[in-house]
Amino acid sequence: IETKLPKVGTTIFSVMSHLAVQHKAVNLGQGFPDFEPPQALRDALTRAMNNGLNQYAPGIGTAALREQIALKTERLYGHKVSPDSDITVTSGATEALFAAIAAVVRAGEEVIVFDPAYDSYEPAIELQGARAVHIPLTVPSFSIDWQRVRDAITPRTRMILINSPHNPSGAVLSAQDLDELADIVRDTPIVVLSDEVYEHIVYDGAHESVLRHPELAARSIVVSSFGKTYHCTGWKVGYAVAPTKLSAEFRKVHQYLTFCTFHPAQVAFAEFLASTPEHYLELPAFYQAKRDRFRNLLAPSRLKLLDVPGGYFQLVDYSAIHDQDDVSFCEWLVKEGGVAAIPLTPFYEKAPGTHLVRLCFAKSDATMEAAAERLCKL
Amino acid sequence: IETKLPKVGTTIFSVMSHLAVQHKAVNLGQGFPDFEPPQALRDALTRAMNNGLNQYAPGIGTAALREQIALKTERLYGHKVSPDSDITVTSGATEALFAAIAAVVRAGEEVIVFDPAYDSYEPAIELQGARAVHIPLTVPSFSIDWQRVRDAITPRTRMILINSPHNPSGAVLSAQDLDELADIVRDTPIVVLSDEVYEHIVYDGAHESVLRHPELAARSIVVSSFGKTYHCTGWKVGYAVAPTKLSAEFRKVHQYLTFCTFHPAQVAFAEFLASTPEHYLELPAFYQAKRDRFRNLLAPSRLKLLDVPGGYFQLVDYSAIHDQDDVSFCEWLVKEGGVAAIPLTPFYEKAPGTHLVRLCFAKSDATMEAAAERLCKL
Ligand SMILES: CSCCC(=O)C(=O)O
Ligand SMILES: CSCCC(=O)C(=O)O
Repeated sequence: IETKLPKVGTTIFSVMSHLAVQHKAVNLGQGFPDFEPPQALRDALTRAMNNGLNQYAPGIGTAALREQIALKTERLYGHKVSPDSDITVTSGATEALFAAIAAVVRAGEEVIVFDPAYDSYEPAIELQGARAVHIPLTVPSFSIDWQRVRDAITPRTRMILINSPHNPSGAVLSAQDLDELADIVRDTPIVVLSDEVYEHIVYDGAHESVLRHPELAARSIVVSSFGKTYHCTGWKVGYAVAPTKLSAEFRKVHQYLTFCTFHPAQVAFAEFLASTPEHYLELPAFYQAKRDRFRNLLAPSRLKLLDVPGGYFQLVDYSAIHDQDDVSFCEWLVKEGGVAAIPLTPFYEKAPGTHLVRLCFAKSDATMEAAAERLCKL
Repeated sequence: IETKLPKVGTTIFSVMSHLAVQHKAVNLGQGFPDFEPPQALRDALTRAMNNGLNQYAPGIGTAALREQIALKTERLYGHKVSPDSDITVTSGATEALFAAIAAVVRAGEEVIVFDPAYDSYEPAIELQGARAVHIPLTVPSFSIDWQRVRDAITPRTRMILINSPHNPSGAVLSAQDLDELADIVRDTPIVVLSDEVYEHIVYDGAHESVLRHPELAARSIVVSSFGKTYHCTGWKVGYAVAPTKLSAEFRKVHQYLTFCTFHPAQVAFAEFLASTPEHYLELPAFYQAKRDRFRNLLAPSRLKLLDVPGGYFQLVDYSAIHDQDDVSFCEWLVKEGGVAAIPLTPFYEKAPGTHLVRLCFAKSDATMEAAAERLCKL
């Protein structure tokens, strides 16, 4: 069998997590917290299972969970959406991203992505017979040069895929960025796909969701997830918010991708969000303390720390230690240094030769200390 | 936005379940049991959550669960597979079917499906830019006329999609059927995709899995699911078994469709399968009793009952009651008759004009009695 995805190997996250286990390294690679979802949320899930909610959920998600998502969207971003027609619960943000791309993008069309780009975007685009057009973010701010976007638009451009807070850099888009984007897509058939899974982890000021921008919201599919917000990346519950017509197309694909998502977790999230609607407001302070602690721990090291405006990843420049490329450095680091990190090269079409790797600080103090001790020895 | 799936509306299962709720009908439409997964399985899931297994599972599934699936595959079908390279856990059989099609089938190619065909097959094929070639099963046995298959093969045929026990008819393929299929695909590049989600619900004799047939197994992706077997269709844990090279392609797509599946359920299934490996052996007797009870309850009705060799659906011919087409009949039945059923027309490219609808008997005695009382009045 000839592969349909010649550029794809095993995702770097799986590769590094596997190496971390093999070499007993501290795993700051794949992005997952090492703390637990709230006990009340776990208890609600158990109750749902024991209350007979073990058969198919509605394909679009339970009514109660969609209602909670609509309430949050209005409260937080001032954007009114219909739970019936504009919100779809998915099996994680990954499914939502794939379904959005599959629903909108056709063979021969182009999707603009910003490098470093999360690694699921391009294969999803290529499986449509479409092409990812890569625009590198400006280093080290990881900001978008909008003139480059204007120059990249062609009659085939069908979608622009943005991600804020950005993975891996933590960069956030500003209100002006959204205005620039709105300017560019106005009077075009371009759909915006906005990956906002770190929406609640922004350190200074508020998250500029596409949903705050009425003109953009009217042509966007916004994807988020509960995994990052409630410390349960392994529960795989995400969702997409989109205007009714886009949602209808999204749902056509979603119903044949997974049909529906693990039912008891949907019941549990709906209950938990109803009883503790503003739980996520604690996240920025919680992660800011983690971030600052981690930066302090790394201060004596020879790593140069970049700014982290959002998300739970710290980019570090290792050029004072090694001049190898980042993939070789990460291989060496997991084997010899005892720490798993994520290189940036796999997220680029043309790697810029920076000496940056990503470390996850969504970790217990003990984990951070163990990693820092090793990193300070380099 | 112009739709990529012009033939697709909301899946008939969602439509009928929605109507069932709206009209307070007994829901024998969408296929789900109204009994619960084993308490030990639910308890194991709760334990996994409380033991800190809430972050990403390995993308291909937990090692323990893949090990159990490999053991079962060998014990039941005499087929040795590697848990490391040949088994992938998915978010339900629906995801596995989509991933298999997306991994193998290219634009311009053809996939042979047998009508009535489960409704997710064709959209998944069309999203690849490929074409579903529909061959009707012979009514009322719902068997395959292999000469028609031979005649339908072209140089573009890339996949043959079989489903045994068959949904909606319950028909099962025989060892001779598998030999016929092997004959047809020998020395071609055709991949077999075998949907075996009802593998443990076969009433007379053993299930003829493609995995029992070494020649076919070497070129097949076999999809199954725990939902039907452990009464938890809403948990959405399925899997695909395929030879290493096919699995590698399957996994490339899977990792970008959902990445991984709800972690605590994987831990729970692995534990439950290890402690109760032959639990599924109880299923045929359990469902045979359900089936026979349901048939007895319907005996006084004017519905004609077709044979049910496998699965948990009863096809009934309603022509003594109405001469409308099956979609109209189902609409009438859910509104006026108080019972939700599934028409067969949505599963055909060219509906043959039979007067058959599908009733699910994976139901408590009380549910079956309530439905039968209404059906006997027609
Ligand atoms: C789906 S595994 C990768 C998790 C993640 O989002 C990341 O590490 O960036
Ligand atoms: C995924 S909803 C449909 C369930 C099912 O397999 C059926 O009713 O045939």
